[in-house]
Amino acid sequence: MNTRTTFLGLGAMGTALAAAALDAGHSITIWNRTPHRSQALGESGATVADTVKEAVAGDGVIVACLFDHRSVHDVLDPATAGLSGRTVINLTTTTPKQARELALWAAERGITYLDGAIMAVPQMIGSPGSAILYSGSATAFEEHRALLDLWGESSYFGSDAGMASLYDMALLAGMYTMFAGFMHGAAMVGSEGVSATEFATWATPFLAAMTGGLAGFAAVIDAKDYAGEGQQSLEFTETALAALTRASIDQSVNVEVLKPVHDIVRRQIAAGFGKQGTARIFEDLRSTR
Amino acid sequence: MNTRTTFLGLGAMGTALAAAALDAGHSITIWNRTPHRSQALGESGATVADTVKEAVAGDGVIVACLFDHRSVHDVLDPATAGLSGRTVINLTTTTPKQARELALWAAERGITYLDGAIMAVPQMIGSPGSAILYSGSATAFEEHRALLDLWGESSYFGSDAGMASLYDMALLAGMYTMFAGFMHGAAMVGSEGVSATEFATWATPFLAAMTGGLAGFAAVIDAKDYAGEGQQSLEFTETALAALTRASIDQSVNVEVLKPVHDIVRRQIAAGFGKQGTARIFEDLRSTR
Ligand SMILES: NC(=O)c1ccc[n+]([C@@H]2O[C@H](COP(=O)([O-])OP(=O)(O)OC[C@H]3O[C@@H](n4cnc5c(N)ncnc54)[C@H](OP(=O)(O)O)[C@@H]3O)[C@@H](O)[C@H]2O)c1
Ligand SMILES: NC(=O)c1ccc[n+]([C@@H]2O[C@H](COP(=O)([O-])OP(=O)(O)OC[C@H]3O[C@@H](n4cnc5c(N)ncnc54)[C@H](OP(=O)(O)O)[C@@H]3O)[C@@H](O)[C@H]2O)c1
Repeated sequence: MNTRTTFLGLGAMGTALAAAALDAGHSITIWNRTPHRSQALGESGATVADTVKEAVAGDGVIVACLFDHRSVHDVLDPATAGLSGRTVINLTTTTPKQARELALWAAERGITYLDGAIMAVPQMIGSPGSAILYSGSATAFEEHRALLDLWGESSYFGSDAGMASLYDMALLAGMYTMFAGFMHGAAMVGSEGVSATEFATWATPFLAAMTGGLAGFAAVIDAKDYAGEGQQSLEFTETALAALTRASIDQSVNVEVLKPVHDIVRRQIAAGFGKQGTARIFEDLRSTR
Repeated sequence: MNTRTTFLGLGAMGTALAAAALDAGHSITIWNRTPHRSQALGESGATVADTVKEAVAGDGVIVACLFDHRSVHDVLDPATAGLSGRTVINLTTTTPKQARELALWAAERGITYLDGAIMAVPQMIGSPGSAILYSGSATAFEEHRALLDLWGESSYFGSDAGMASLYDMALLAGMYTMFAGFMHGAAMVGSEGVSATEFATWATPFLAAMTGGLAGFAAVIDAKDYAGEGQQSLEFTETALAALTRASIDQSVNVEVLKPVHDIVRRQIAAGFGKQGTARIFEDLRSTR
């Protein structure tokens, strides 16, 4: 019986995942569409397969880390015959909908499917800051936990295969908007010759501290307690955003990033909620399904 | 000689500032347009003035905490005669341009002017999380440091009176966009029945950790090193933002907050910078003066 782990896709991320497994003493078989990318790991002891069919010929778990949803089908569809009864852990970035499609595709073919969303860059794999979110087969998550934990902190988000990438994307939405907001602030002070580095010394602890307010917003949102006591009102926030916008324009800074937040707040006020809490922004964004 | 501190404006914030001074043993004189708001502090030992002229009759420092820039002029302009040679610390929220206008107005009348931007809510005044940014007269900042430190951590941003509020607004721009980004994420997972509280348990440490990346962006921005090694490319970020947008739409979440970030990234790519670092977002936002 062959318990080698198979790695499909040796881009920057696939290589980091496979290398961590190899370094930890796992027997691994690797495949990449463009053969030269397999070379270095092959020299370090990995078995290099020439075809996907050959790569999945054993009975170990199969780890896919390809470009996108379509490339996962490009690689797995022709090899379906060898996958029935096997476990596929797919670490390719997909949308929640695409992850669910893959889970269904797998289920129909007798394949156990675990979806993963990597919250790290390749250089971070195996080091403290690395985290990977998983959802789909709980059995696969438990059975291969030792392997998964080689790459970073592993968290499981339930049997719906779409949840890992939904959480991943929800967190990244917060991150990218925060980055853009930081750059807006850096542009404001930068217009007066303050360096971004000087601004970052203030913004880094300030924004980190302000994340402490998120749980409070969340409690209001969950309880739909927007009219409750002690909240910063939408009217107060509107005055602040209007001043930020005016000051940005005074400094010739592009207000594009700030504008939707201001628009949403004004819409909520126009709808009659001016005295209610600022967490009502959520009501404007959320799904109306 | 009367070294009482005068407080003009006893709204929620003015009252908190005056109360902290009174509690610390300072002699204070207070004035508010609507008299009943002076009552409680008057009963606690503050001297209640009936007019602004009467309030500024001594020789102590004058602290103004009014509604906005216009109300500062409404209150101070008629009392100008008594203000020459005196120090005004203005903690009313203004834009940088308005703070500079007040500094000039003060200078022309022989008034020493210190502008402050309060980064706290009234309940926080005097407790650890409270911070106030100052700019304008360095002498006023040093001379009244003991008073200022009663309210929170005091930081001085130079003699240009506009800088305190510019920093304040730059930090708030980051904060409000981060809050909106968090709510976008909460809306994404909320569409699958995940509570905002559950999401906050992940988002709070994640976003706090991600503030660790801001100094790296800042270094790239200051060195204009967008073509340097090891940066997440605009093309990579565009792919991520396109996936986040698609996933948000799949979940019926309003993508308004994400859209300008995506637009800016696409514009930078269209301008030929796709292989360069994501910190180039700054170049799209910054002042072109
Ligand atoms: N890099 C990161 O920082 C990071 C972070 C989190 C998540 N991820 C995710 O991890 C996955 C891989 O990223 P990466 O950085 O390794 O990307 P990459 O370096 O561009 O590698 C892409 C891989 O996919 C393969 N591929 C693409 N299209 C294919 C197709 N139609 N058929 C077969 N193979 C195909 C490529 O093979 P060839 O060598 O033949 O082109 C290569 O092995 C992506 O989904 C990415 O979003 C990456
Ligand atoms: N509250 C906060 O969380 C917070 C945080 C940071 C900064 N700030 C800033 O602190 C300042 C005061 O805020 P606040 O919360 O104390 O507001 P507030 O409770 O609404 O009080 C406003 C004060 O301004 C006075 N005022 C308004 N227009 C006036 C005019 N034309 N002439 C004379 N007095 C006038 C009001 O007098 P009446 O009583 O006669 O109406 C009252 O004393 C604002 O600039 C605000 O942006 C507040």
